[in-house]
Amino acid sequence: MERARFATFSIAGAQRYGLVTDCGVVDLTARHGKQWPTLREVIEAGALQRLADEAAGLTPDIDLGDIRYEIPVPAPEKIICVGVNFPDRNEEYKDGQAAPSNPSLFIRFPRSFVGHKQALVRPPESPQLDYEGEIVIVVGKGGRRIPEASALDHIAALSLCNEGTLRDWVRHGKFNVTQGKNFDRSGSIGPWLVPFTDEAQLVDIKLETRVNGEVRQQDRTSRMIFSFRKIISYISTFTTLVPGDVIVTGTPTGAGARFDPPIWLKPGDVVEVEAECIGLLRNTIADEVV
Amino acid sequence: MERARFATFSIAGAQRYGLVTDCGVVDLTARHGKQWPTLREVIEAGALQRLADEAAGLTPDIDLGDIRYEIPVPAPEKIICVGVNFPDRNEEYKDGQAAPSNPSLFIRFPRSFVGHKQALVRPPESPQLDYEGEIVIVVGKGGRRIPEASALDHIAALSLCNEGTLRDWVRHGKFNVTQGKNFDRSGSIGPWLVPFTDEAQLVDIKLETRVNGEVRQQDRTSRMIFSFRKIISYISTFTTLVPGDVIVTGTPTGAGARFDPPIWLKPGDVVEVEAECIGLLRNTIADEVV
Repeated sequence: MERARFATFSIAGAQRYGLVTDCGVVDLTARHGKQWPTLREVIEAGALQRLADEAAGLTPDIDLGDIRYEIPVPAPEKIICVGVNFPDRNEEYKDGQAAPSNPSLFIRFPRSFVGHKQALVRPPESPQLDYEGEIVIVVGKGGRRIPEASALDHIAALSLCNEGTLRDWVRHGKFNVTQGKNFDRSGSIGPWLVPFTDEAQLVDIKLETRVNGEVRQQDRTSRMIFSFRKIISYISTFTTLVPGDVIVTGTPTGAGARFDPPIWLKPGDVVEVEAECIGLLRNTIADEVV
Repeated sequence: MERARFATFSIAGAQRYGLVTDCGVVDLTARHGKQWPTLREVIEAGALQRLADEAAGLTPDIDLGDIRYEIPVPAPEKIICVGVNFPDRNEEYKDGQAAPSNPSLFIRFPRSFVGHKQALVRPPESPQLDYEGEIVIVVGKGGRRIPEASALDHIAALSLCNEGTLRDWVRHGKFNVTQGKNFDRSGSIGPWLVPFTDEAQLVDIKLETRVNGEVRQQDRTSRMIFSFRKIISYISTFTTLVPGDVIVTGTPTGAGARFDPPIWLKPGDVVEVEAECIGLLRNTIADEVV
């Protein structure tokens, strides 16, 4: 059975959400927008599966060609990203340090991301725009100090991220990667949310990133240094997770910075991030018009 | 003339905002809450000074003893913190690195802060709760790539922060201080917002932190490594600042981690952060009840 796909999108200047099918989009804002203004509220109500069941028999209202994909949860309380979470990634830093015993975490603002098919923006301040393909988990049931044993019960949905990074700006300050990870519209999330119902959706799936069709990153989630269970449990040790929170779970080796000389993204390049049973997130690169 | 003080507070379980006077609080939610639900919307409308003028002649509605202070902007789009921004602070890290050429930036979530007079929470996961007294600027007019020359025009108001930190958790991962800076209720912002109208309010003011009455941090903003102008201009290079955004501008030398052996905060301690013409932010320390 095909899994349901929930997208947030713009049409005629307004933001809506709906169920994406091969024949078009079932408009869920028209049906439920008063009760739940965005997918964040749908998730908070635990209603993703109910809406999927309800919409399955309906004829799509909107042509796929008419929508502009936006990031699936438009204004999450938090977007937390995990760094250095696949084998060999630690070595890419060439700092002689041993693999870390806890995840490295940083924060991105929603405005640093665009949706599926929108252009990733290379700013005039840096030529070093790089890709990082990652799997996204969206929190359903909130909590604090969540045990690893029950951690997966807190996931509402899955998505993908191109965690676009300005490499030189990652090292601008003494600590922290904040600025290199937060240029407006430098990354993407999408194309949609797939409801999470079963550990098999996550435990050993293939994650691949391609640039202009060439495979640059390819690994399996079973090789992650910090598991999805560990990530959720660890983050919730210090902060209360709430419905709609977005966790970006780390990228395999093979970013452009790894090549010698490095290969940065340039205008016109097409980056695709794909994972089994989640989808394919595609973005082109464009220079910012300042 | 006394400057206006805008506070966000709770009373009878509801969150409101008002003008704090020596004789009580003028309830501004009662007067303007429909138009502007929180101080963030007041700031966005550029209406702080108008509300101050209007409220100046009114009799307070609420006793000061009846309110619980909350953080002044309850849900800012961003809270961006500057690390290592006073002389000698770079040396405190004892890593042999030269002073940085750009600010180090990290993000805190609103839920990592409490308001004036609320308890700062020491979690069971770490005994290393530390204080950092800082000056807060709240963005009024948004913008991107703001020149230093006009940067101060983008400030709506000033406040104070105790940027409470769990020191061992700052070094948990390979990079980034995220987790040590984001334990729920481990820091504070307040007591209120003071409208910003004049560079003299910022350019050379004294900032002091006391623990149980003992001065631990004391410096002047004229000695900051990165000026307020530079911070605003630099941050807006990568992200669009919007009204209500909170920037926490760095702490003087003298945190508890600097002592040998370090002196961590313990339950019952009282921490005060004070700056001329802004106010005095006071919090006690309490162990978390898990």
